[in-house]
Amino acid sequence: MARIRFRCDPAPKRLVSLLHKARGLIGLTMKTRLCVIGSGPAGHTAAIYAARAELKPILFEGWMANDVGPGGQYTTAPPIENFPGFPDGILGRELIDRCRNQALRFGTQIFTETVTKVDFSASPFKVFTDLRTVIADAVVVATGALVKRLSFPGSGDGPKGFWKRGMSACAVCDGAAPIFRNKPLAVIGGGDSAMEEAIYLTKYGSKVYIIHRRDTFKASKIMQNRALSSPNIEVLWNSVVVEAYGEGERGVLGGLKVENVVSGEVSDLKVSGLFIAIGREPATKFLGGQLELDSDGYVVTKPGSTHTSVQGVFAAGEVQDKKYRQGITAAGTGCMAALDAEHYLQEIGSQEGKSD
Amino acid sequence: MARIRFRCDPAPKRLVSLLHKARGLIGLTMKTRLCVIGSGPAGHTAAIYAARAELKPILFEGWMANDVGPGGQYTTAPPIENFPGFPDGILGRELIDRCRNQALRFGTQIFTETVTKVDFSASPFKVFTDLRTVIADAVVVATGALVKRLSFPGSGDGPKGFWKRGMSACAVCDGAAPIFRNKPLAVIGGGDSAMEEAIYLTKYGSKVYIIHRRDTFKASKIMQNRALSSPNIEVLWNSVVVEAYGEGERGVLGGLKVENVVSGEVSDLKVSGLFIAIGREPATKFLGGQLELDSDGYVVTKPGSTHTSVQGVFAAGEVQDKKYRQGITAAGTGCMAALDAEHYLQEIGSQEGKSD
Repeated sequence: MARIRFRCDPAPKRLVSLLHKARGLIGLTMKTRLCVIGSGPAGHTAAIYAARAELKPILFEGWMANDVGPGGQYTTAPPIENFPGFPDGILGRELIDRCRNQALRFGTQIFTETVTKVDFSASPFKVFTDLRTVIADAVVVATGALVKRLSFPGSGDGPKGFWKRGMSACAVCDGAAPIFRNKPLAVIGGGDSAMEEAIYLTKYGSKVYIIHRRDTFKASKIMQNRALSSPNIEVLWNSVVVEAYGEGERGVLGGLKVENVVSGEVSDLKVSGLFIAIGREPATKFLGGQLELDSDGYVVTKPGSTHTSVQGVFAAGEVQDKKYRQGITAAGTGCMAALDAEHYLQEIGSQEGKSD
Repeated sequence: MARIRFRCDPAPKRLVSLLHKARGLIGLTMKTRLCVIGSGPAGHTAAIYAARAELKPILFEGWMANDVGPGGQYTTAPPIENFPGFPDGILGRELIDRCRNQALRFGTQIFTETVTKVDFSASPFKVFTDLRTVIADAVVVATGALVKRLSFPGSGDGPKGFWKRGMSACAVCDGAAPIFRNKPLAVIGGGDSAMEEAIYLTKYGSKVYIIHRRDTFKASKIMQNRALSSPNIEVLWNSVVVEAYGEGERGVLGGLKVENVVSGEVSDLKVSGLFIAIGREPATKFLGGQLELDSDGYVVTKPGSTHTSVQGVFAAGEVQDKKYRQGITAAGTGCMAALDAEHYLQEIGSQEGKSD
């Protein structure tokens, strides 16, 4: 069967609509023993192990799923220095490509489509994209988490907002844009990501402000020290952004109104860029409540395993981990999910040769 | 302080004895916030994360600990194909070297010495080698496990043996190798792992023999049933392998001489693969019973974390995992151990600058 791939550019709506109709007509339905949803370190590691175990997995890597390309958040990260095996660091994009190639090498079938819904009400399970339905004996959910955004006047992406016109959630993706060159920039947040973003942005901006609502950071010591020792970074403690306003005819971001939450004083901060680094949201909406989630929306797994509330559905990576959230821990749980899935398939007597 | 390293060759006894005396005289005692014991993927990943968190860890990589060189069982493995990020496979030795360099790069101090005993009775903990005592606020135990091997003509890894040339101790790691495809294979053992290995190998081999020295298995009923109901598995009861012999010029495994221990008859069994599944032994003896172990000698950790029965002592990798036992899962738990240790050190207020 021909693989339909739209790696980067959105396909024209008409084409999608035609393919929709085609699905209805020719029935793009496939069977597999294991379907992996997600293409970060967890998803690809699950696929590598499952493929080597001859489960012939199908993996959905997403097609601008949650506004991120295949590979997820790792692909937009700064060079990764803590994934073991890469002493000189490695670009997230490159690491994901290597994992992807490894999954392909052992026979994973990868589709660049986003899973829109699932049906876990009975086994075999159903996994739907806009173009395809996959019937799977077992499923690994490895969809990761998304960057959280803030809401204040000017924060939106409509005509009155500055999202993508000065505001971003990814310094590596957007920091090099000409509008940020040699301009004052700001980062909101107090964790490792905020420190990372701020340090990264000093390459481009004339100055970088970290705006943080508390009087201490929760970032690791090493990241705090790096940020605080930079002469181009200044911290605005106990501060929140209450408004973003524009500048000039092009309507790009011109500055912020920043409130000190202790004194209540609101001051003006001229910046041309604002990068939001306040945390993450697990990508679990497409599950439609069919797996047990915790209060923050993360998939609940039985500790020490990848078993979810539905037998035969496993979860790996950040979608089920708000504690460690590292690439290497995600990869580890991806492996666990594949092994757990394999045991499950043996138990239910899922036979080889059932995959399309 | 000068680093004393004997990477491969045993030091002359006289030198060791002199150094022993020197320790007594000059007191080779060091302080650190975190001491990592072990140098597989778990130990090095713990060190990478701990070093990046400015914990200035000390890592003992062992000096022919349990007859294996620094890096442990991974270094003697065939090329590793399932560690994500290496689509063309990588030699275990090379992977460990890369992880080791990464740990060094961020400031880990590595000693090529074997930990002989520990004192976890009070915090700070004490970790002893023949040459040194380390006083540590927190400890990560990542000493792994050893494969139990059998000894018969042809079982060794020298020029006359077939270890790694047809003989292996891990079907998940090595089963997919081309030399095993569509060939008769054999597994020695009678426990759950032996059943698992045999079932797993039916994916690859034309037939799988389970060679067991008794007339019953000690494996669980469910695993026995699964193995015994497979049309591609045949059991040789009351049987032991007395010799392995080669085939062809490449000197790979060609077959086995199998003795029936009841009749004394020796028969020939042509197989291209022999998987030893008679158990693994976690490297926990040096702990002297100071951590809670399970009935098989593995360190008990709180599921979903690396906390052991002693606060401030963490365990990662196979020494605490008899279920998944993969390099990538070990690395994941190594990362978790470093993050758990960092939280613990923050909690007890262990200060920077305390490391020697």
